[in-house]
Amino acid sequence: MKIVVLKFGGTSVGSIERIKKVTNIIIGYIKKKYKVIVVSSAMSGETNELIKKSKKISNNFSPSEYDVLLSTGEQASCALIAGRLNHLGYKSNSWMGWQIPIFTEGNYCSSRISTIYKKNILNFLRSGGIPVIAGFQGINVNNRITTLGRGGSDASAIMLSKFFKAKKCIIYTDVEGVMTTDPRTLKKAKKIKIISYEEMLEMASLGAKVMQPHSIQDARLNRINIDVKSSFTNKEGTLITKRKNISNNKTITGITSTKNDSKITLVGVKDRPGVAASIFKPLSQNFINVDMVVQNISANGKETDLTFTIKTEELQKTSKLLRQNKKIKFKKLIIDKNVSKVSIIGVGMITTPGVTYRMFQALANKGINILVISTSEIKISVLINKKNLKKAVYTLHKEFGLYI
Amino acid sequence: MKIVVLKFGGTSVGSIERIKKVTNIIIGYIKKKYKVIVVSSAMSGETNELIKKSKKISNNFSPSEYDVLLSTGEQASCALIAGRLNHLGYKSNSWMGWQIPIFTEGNYCSSRISTIYKKNILNFLRSGGIPVIAGFQGINVNNRITTLGRGGSDASAIMLSKFFKAKKCIIYTDVEGVMTTDPRTLKKAKKIKIISYEEMLEMASLGAKVMQPHSIQDARLNRINIDVKSSFTNKEGTLITKRKNISNNKTITGITSTKNDSKITLVGVKDRPGVAASIFKPLSQNFINVDMVVQNISANGKETDLTFTIKTEELQKTSKLLRQNKKIKFKKLIIDKNVSKVSIIGVGMITTPGVTYRMFQALANKGINILVISTSEIKISVLINKKNLKKAVYTLHKEFGLYI
Repeated sequence: MKIVVLKFGGTSVGSIERIKKVTNIIIGYIKKKYKVIVVSSAMSGETNELIKKSKKISNNFSPSEYDVLLSTGEQASCALIAGRLNHLGYKSNSWMGWQIPIFTEGNYCSSRISTIYKKNILNFLRSGGIPVIAGFQGINVNNRITTLGRGGSDASAIMLSKFFKAKKCIIYTDVEGVMTTDPRTLKKAKKIKIISYEEMLEMASLGAKVMQPHSIQDARLNRINIDVKSSFTNKEGTLITKRKNISNNKTITGITSTKNDSKITLVGVKDRPGVAASIFKPLSQNFINVDMVVQNISANGKETDLTFTIKTEELQKTSKLLRQNKKIKFKKLIIDKNVSKVSIIGVGMITTPGVTYRMFQALANKGINILVISTSEIKISVLINKKNLKKAVYTLHKEFGLYI
Repeated sequence: MKIVVLKFGGTSVGSIERIKKVTNIIIGYIKKKYKVIVVSSAMSGETNELIKKSKKISNNFSPSEYDVLLSTGEQASCALIAGRLNHLGYKSNSWMGWQIPIFTEGNYCSSRISTIYKKNILNFLRSGGIPVIAGFQGINVNNRITTLGRGGSDASAIMLSKFFKAKKCIIYTDVEGVMTTDPRTLKKAKKIKIISYEEMLEMASLGAKVMQPHSIQDARLNRINIDVKSSFTNKEGTLITKRKNISNNKTITGITSTKNDSKITLVGVKDRPGVAASIFKPLSQNFINVDMVVQNISANGKETDLTFTIKTEELQKTSKLLRQNKKIKFKKLIIDKNVSKVSIIGVGMITTPGVTYRMFQALANKGINILVISTSEIKISVLINKKNLKKAVYTLHKEFGLYI
């Protein structure tokens, strides 16, 4: 069987008109002799409405019932899609997690798919049916509904592609694909036609919102090609695939930037072994994610300055934890909310020397000061003053030829 | 186990505030050492919203997907109730039809409960849990969601009471119980404290909207006492029970009236054997419910006048079918939309002679003309001019001492 998995996000099924459009896309694949597995999110807005209700019931709503509540959104959209396909004369059924079943492991609200039973869906596909499967949901071994957390419907689509050995997995969304950088930061951002899992992982981790990192990781591990495209236009999207499939690597594939980072500097920290651990342990225990870290070498060997970045929303909590921490001593705590992290990502930089130099030089030429640097094999991040953000992204976009 | 089934209708769980109130009612029974099984409808308004969506997708929406769509309403309200109970420190879980499971037979949208598996719920009750069960839904042998049609959550409550041998089944609603007559017709209507299944069946069939007839019939067959009461007040409601439990029968228990009946008279119908069948067969084939029927004896033995009533919304269709019917001949078709059916119901009339006379005399004394009469063992219905409706209900209410 030539199976294709088509996943539609919330905005793609956000209204009755959109659902009608989406069924036309599905039928297009049926006419091309594909066996289609549809995965749908909840209609956009529905999930937020349900979350609002749960918050009014309890500021600490029970996770297992939260999953029961939220999973109704996908149930409704799947019924509407299948109902529309029926209306147009196609055999189709909605399928909830428990009907397949899709088994999950882990906690409520953030489960992971462990097993998908194929028999029911395969029989339905063989009989000419179009299964419309609720994304984001499964059941655990206790026969309770579980959900997969943010971006969970993508995870459903990728695991279904894996288990059913789909020829294609297409993620339909409200953007035309993965962009070289956020179009809100740089209007001239261009669509990336092809990108490796690794680059996509870095971009997603650094704030590109097209897909959640763990879904990309699942796709990478199972070598599933993902097409990200818009359900609103008929244009070609972005193919996420393995590096080997990408022939003409550019040095840099994409640029990301953040707007809600804060920089904290502890001035005059007593420099002794284990001091960094003493600083970061209570933060980690409180689920505060520390990002870029720099420690200046102390001149006298006794004191040092330690700088790191966190999300601004965790600034208050972090600052409180640092001041309460009796295991460390420091002279001053300097906080800077006006920072942005700009990152360039590209597998091409592995084989191209001098990328770091080009980046720094390009920024320096525009008078942009670099506050902190962090790098990985396929990524270089710099922290700059937020006021320079747009200029920096524009400069780097030009420097590395992303317009072309 | 001392089990009580508490069923909450749509308005009883119609808002977050209402859901909080309802959980307090539940906890009241827990404190009285009852094992509580909760059955909930969808939040009022939700089901209508879902129906609207289905109609926009198709004017002939697939029944199986309709059930998948509609059943999300109860899933959400049950999750919110269970979530609230959890918040207040009580062990509780929502239970969907498929998790118990509750098996149904019959068509989508109008299934009937055939079997309820008790093991899961019994274990949960024994462990101190409060199961919050989605009303209105079950699954069929194909593992597809089915719904029970109008008033389906009442049917769920009654069948759960049967299978779990509940000591009580309490139907919480937005009225204080079953009234002697519709308070919109007669402000002075009083609450009936106790009523037999048979009387309640007649009243429901004649338009009292508290419960659907088939749920009352299920309760009657299984000898389940039903308490109908308001979740908005703390007042005693109406007990629906078997005749033997009612000691001080009044002659008449309740009065119903209709506002949307129409009277059709076929004048000068050829009087031959089988003519009534020829008239009514096409109506029945088109699902038109013929209610009261009178045939005048023809003076010459050749022609007769036939009068019957139908719901006004089916008037156009009926009139068309009658005119198209080539098997019958008549001189004239007279339609009267200004009629109302007023019925008095009471098991007491079986043992009390002269009820019919008293009814007719009371109406005659007020100058109210009776157009058509129909009777059963515990009910007398008369068709009158609609303009006399309130006067008739008031007069009969007084005549049979329902104020007391």
